[in-house]
Parts: sequence; C-alpha cells; structure tokens
Amino acid sequence: MKNIVILGSTGSIGRQTLEVIDLHRDKFKLIALSARSNVDLLIEQAKKFRPQYVVITNGNTDKVRKELAGEKIEILEGYDHLSTIASLPQVDIVVTALVGFAGLIPTLTAIEHGKDIALANKETLVVAGEIVTRKAAENNVKILPVDSEHSAIFQCLMGEENSAVEKIYLTASGGPFRGMSRNDLQHITKEQALKHPNWSMGNKITIDSATLMNKGLEAIEARWLFGLRPEQIDIIIHPQSIIHSLVQFVDGSIKAQMGLPDMRLPIQLALSYPERLPNDFPRFNFMDYPQLTFEKPDTQVFRCLAIALEAMRKGGNYPCVMNAANEIAVYAFLSDQIGFLDIADIVEETLNKAEYIQSPDIDTYLECDRKARETAEQIILKKS
Amino acid sequence: MKNIVILGSTGSIGRQTLEVIDLHRDKFKLIALSARSNVDLLIEQAKKFRPQYVVITNGNTDKVRKELAGEKIEILEGYDHLSTIASLPQVDIVVTALVGFAGLIPTLTAIEHGKDIALANKETLVVAGEIVTRKAAENNVKILPVDSEHSAIFQCLMGEENSAVEKIYLTASGGPFRGMSRNDLQHITKEQALKHPNWSMGNKITIDSATLMNKGLEAIEARWLFGLRPEQIDIIIHPQSIIHSLVQFVDGSIKAQMGLPDMRLPIQLALSYPERLPNDFPRFNFMDYPQLTFEKPDTQVFRCLAIALEAMRKGGNYPCVMNAANEIAVYAFLSDQIGFLDIADIVEETLNKAEYIQSPDIDTYLECDRKARETAEQIILKKS
Repeated sequence: MKNIVILGSTGSIGRQTLEVIDLHRDKFKLIALSARSNVDLLIEQAKKFRPQYVVITNGNTDKVRKELAGEKIEILEGYDHLSTIASLPQVDIVVTALVGFAGLIPTLTAIEHGKDIALANKETLVVAGEIVTRKAAENNVKILPVDSEHSAIFQCLMGEENSAVEKIYLTASGGPFRGMSRNDLQHITKEQALKHPNWSMGNKITIDSATLMNKGLEAIEARWLFGLRPEQIDIIIHPQSIIHSLVQFVDGSIKAQMGLPDMRLPIQLALSYPERLPNDFPRFNFMDYPQLTFEKPDTQVFRCLAIALEAMRKGGNYPCVMNAANEIAVYAFLSDQIGFLDIADIVEETLNKAEYIQSPDIDTYLECDRKARETAEQIILKKS
Repeated sequence: MKNIVILGSTGSIGRQTLEVIDLHRDKFKLIALSARSNVDLLIEQAKKFRPQYVVITNGNTDKVRKELAGEKIEILEGYDHLSTIASLPQVDIVVTALVGFAGLIPTLTAIEHGKDIALANKETLVVAGEIVTRKAAENNVKILPVDSEHSAIFQCLMGEENSAVEKIYLTASGGPFRGMSRNDLQHITKEQALKHPNWSMGNKITIDSATLMNKGLEAIEARWLFGLRPEQIDIIIHPQSIIHSLVQFVDGSIKAQMGLPDMRLPIQLALSYPERLPNDFPRFNFMDYPQLTFEKPDTQVFRCLAIALEAMRKGGNYPCVMNAANEIAVYAFLSDQIGFLDIADIVEETLNKAEYIQSPDIDTYLECDRKARETAEQIILKKS
C-alpha cells in the first residue's frame, strides 16, 4: 500500500491520477489533495476519496470548509501548505501536477523529506534540474517521470546501465501546425492552437506543443532526469504519437516504448513502479496504425524549439529565464494580447536581456524567474 | 574475459560471431571452433584466432591436420566431439550456430556442464524446448538468444518481471513474396526464394523466411525461451525489418527493440550480456526510414505459418515432426525436387501421418525426428 499526495488534483494530470488510484484502491491510498481555485471539483474529489488533508492555494476556502464540514478532512489554505502535505510523515509518493514554476518549492520540500516524486511538473527540472536531481540523489529519492516521453525513456532504461546510453530520441507529434510555414502561422488563433491532434491536455502545455517549446522543455527535463549531455538528446517528429520516445545504446541497439496516447499509463507506472499493474485501458493495435512516420522538426518555423535547445546547451539560468518568459508569453497569447509567432520573439528577447549566471542557487533562480517575467511582460506591453 | 566455443563457425552466424570476437579481443577468448565440411574456411579461422580445439564433423580432416600442423591446436573429428568442446571446463559460453536438428545434443551437453548458451540454433527449442529450458533452469544456465527477434524480446524484458508480460509480437519482414497470391507462388524458383529483402542468411533459413515457416519456428522458440502460452504470441508483418520484435505488458505499455538489420548486434549482446559493449556498427537513422509499416500475415497464402502455429498449440512431438518434415522439404526445394508450395503440403501431410505424443523424452524426439524425415522423403518421392 502506497500513500499518495497529489499537488494539483484538479488539472488534467491530477484528475487522471485520481482515476488510476480509483482503479487500484488496494494498492494506493490518497493522503492529501491540493487545488488552486477549482474548489467545486476539489470538493467532489475530497468527498469521493476522503483524504486526510486538502489544500486550497488561491480559492474559496470557506466554501470548501462548508461543503466538507461533515468529513474528517483537515482543510488548509495557502501555497505554503503544499509543502506541509508534501512532507507528511505517512506519505510515500508526491505527485507534482502543478502547472509551471509553482511546482519547484513543494517538490524540493518533498525530496528533502525523502518522498519519491511522480513528476508531472516539468518546470521543476527545466528551471533547477541540477539542484533537484542532486538533492534527490542525496536523499535517496526516486524521481519517477509522468510525462509520456520521459516515462518512455525511463521504461527503456529499466534493467540497463545508464553508462550504456549513447543517445535518446524524444518523439513529438509536431502539434496542430506541423508542416506549416511561418506565413501560415501568422494569423493562427488560440482556438486553432488548442486543438492538439493526439493528446488532451491543459491549455498551457497544449500551446507549448503547438510551438514545439514543449519538446525543448522536455529535452532539458530529460537531460537532468537521465544524466545526459545536451548532444545526446535528439528530437524526432512522429505525428501518430504511438512511439513515446527511444533510447539508443552504445552497441547500436535501440529500445522504444509505445502505446496509445493515454496519460494514465505513465501515471500508473510512476505510482506502481517497480511493479506493473494490470488494467483494462484500451490496447494498441497495429491494424489501427499500419504506418508510423517520422520527420525532422522544422526549427526555422518552430523557433521555440531551437531557442530551448540552445538554452539547454548554455545551461545556467538560461532555461529558467526561457521558461519564465515562455509562461508569460503563452498566457498573453491565450488572452489574445499577442500572436502565435510572437511567443518565440518574446522568449528570445527576454533571454537576450537576461544576465547569464553559470550556477545559480535556488534563491537566484527565484530572482531570475521573477525578473524574466517582468521583462517578458514589458516586451508584451510594448508590442500591444 | 569470457571463454567461448562456437559450434558451426563457418556458417553465417559463426562467421559474424568471429567478427564480433575479433572486435573485442580484450573481452572474448575463442577456445574452440567446429565446422561440418567447409575445411578451407575453418583452417583460415583457426589460423587467425588460434583456438585450443577445432572439430570437423564431416569433412577432410587430413587437410586440416596438414594445414594446422604448425599450430598448437588439437584437431578432433566427428559429431560426438561437438559435445567434447561444448563441455570443456574452461568454457563460459557455447555459441550454437549449427543448422537444424544437429544442434540439440551438443546444446544439451553444454547445458548439463553449466555453460551459458548463445542460442542461434532454433531447432533446439522448437524440437525439445520444454526439456531444454527445464535443464537450463536446473543447471542455472542462461540461454541468450541470438536470433534478432528473440534478442529483441530479451532486451525488452531486461529489468522487467516475466509475470508482467501480456503478450509479445514477433515481427516478420514477410520475405521476398509478401503480397503475392498462391497463384503467383506456383512457379517460384529457388533463386527468387533465396533473395531476402533485408537479411543475408544461410539458405535454409532464407527459404524458411520466404514460406514464413521461420516465423512459426520462432514463435515456438519464443514460447519456451520466455515461458509464454501460445495465445500470448502474435506475428506482425513489418517489411522494413527495423523493429525486431515487441513486448506488451499487463499495463498496456509496449516495448520494442529496433535497429538496422545486423546480426552482429544480437550476437554481441549474447556474448557480452549483461554488459553492452560499444561498437561502430552502422547506426539506424530515422531519415532513412521515414515510414515503418505493419500488416497482418496472410496465412491462407503462407500456410507454413498457420501449420507451425497450430503445431505450437498442440505441442508434444508435433513441433519436432513439423521441423523435421520442413527441413527435408526445404532441401528438396533447394535441389529442385519440389515446388515452393509443396513445402507446406509435405509438412502438413507428414504431421497428418505422425502419431501424437504428449510428453516425449529425448530418445523419443530423436525417433520422431527420424520417422518424420522418412515420411517426408516418401511423400516427396511419390510427388516426383
């Protein structure tokens, strides 16, 4: 029986994590849930799973207190309490399904308290991968990836020596705008950008998939998660999203992990590892996918990917700055302040204005993140 | 340093095994070689690798003695001496690269003497898989597959529990006659059948690839190697021969092993396992294979596959009988005695005439093999 905390239970990953827990009540026990502002869904989840704690970081806590009055659930308010539930002594695994930079501090707290991490918050590693993975090693904590690509790499590495890895391929669907020119992308609307061909995800990550920034963030994440050099990471476009990623070993052998696009699978494995639990999720059938295709990403058109890979190579605070600027730019696009192609411009300009810092500590990262957001916002203001 | 014996060093697998040993002289030491009748190549190999023993089972031993007179190499003659070199105390791994049924007895001898087996002789498991795998378990012997498909499954299972396997897919190129009708196959010549699209192999296995019997033999081999039920084994046609096989786990996740068709890779892994050794074999590049395709095998046209899968389900002595009849039929086809489509007919008729035996011992297998060959030869005589 594993005791589980979910940070961010009302988002896409959080909801699917609860689905997985529901399927295996004999294996997993939910200890605590958190949500930012979607209190109605949080209340519903709390009533169904009866955790010991719920945290609301920025929502109507009074409503939660009223609705859950009859339950034996402790109700906590505020961002700092994410760290409270991430460090409870009875907890085995913390699922970090928060969106964006907010995931970093509670994840570090969980690691310092020896909790295994089911990592769905990629910003944690993008921003501070070196510190986070070092602390995980020091605390003998496993970081179990929930992203389908990183779970694929993780699965391909089971039973293998890390030193036997020659390179990895992260696969990318290419998003809804694959094959388009910069001209085509000039007047893309957010509605178009939010239509991902294969995956149903939150809005931020769906836009990141459309710009290919998501793949750049994943490359940086993979670098830290698997201890790779930047030149060991390659990106390949695979529109069907069936092969979730691949590892090439020093003997030339390649292992791939495949399956229907279904986030419940990597979520379940992150929770059950090293065991695999049976389930009745739909199975892949070759007859539905008689062709799997591959192409090179077009980094001339999808400049966010090139920018991200360059930030990975430079390292230091650059991925942190890039991530902050991208977050601001994506939300500006989602609120119709800027165009689709502006996202890359804003990220690039923010990076150009940032001071390079080789080995920041956590406080410096927080400061770089804050400053980069400010810079990006100023650039957006000037544009509009 | 691993001490290695190669049974069948002048065939395709034997030669490539020597290539791998040559690349890693610091890791592998060749103790003994054997050949049936290709003494010229055997002499050349012996001069290059200076093993302690060579065995000629059916060739010009005098010539070998004369040519190797100056070397400190013990020269042995006759089939029984395969067991002599397979059981030498200093040997760690025996590579069984003999063609056909002849591999069984020396493989069993090696297992009884605690040698790990790099298994390239699939008939060993097809005929007597239950006995061979039981003896391997009793003697704590690893059977390391050399076939690319079984090596693929083996690699996908590294770090996984056997109980986590839901099913496996063995991939098949489909051979040179994929997509043809029975009518098209009526007047196929051996020259056409010997042109395999992707793999360069010996004649027997190349014909088996053209009839798809090879995939049936591999299914039976996989059954024993990985402890599967027949219904857990599926065959999928994949003409590019890049994905070498796949495992689907109980959680729905699929792992595939891929790479360019190059037998040196599975050979090297069988010798180096659990380590992977670096090499400079050509690497797979997605840009050379922008499409990987999949289709169902046509068992109406390629009846050998249906016959083999049925023999697998029935078990007992049926795979042994089928294998013997197929060996006779393939050699009859190669010597222009019968047509391509006759192969399946002869195998089926031989099976129909055989008595079913549920759990044969080794002597019974030898007897079934002998009788099946006789029956198949009689059927061929009647046809011609």
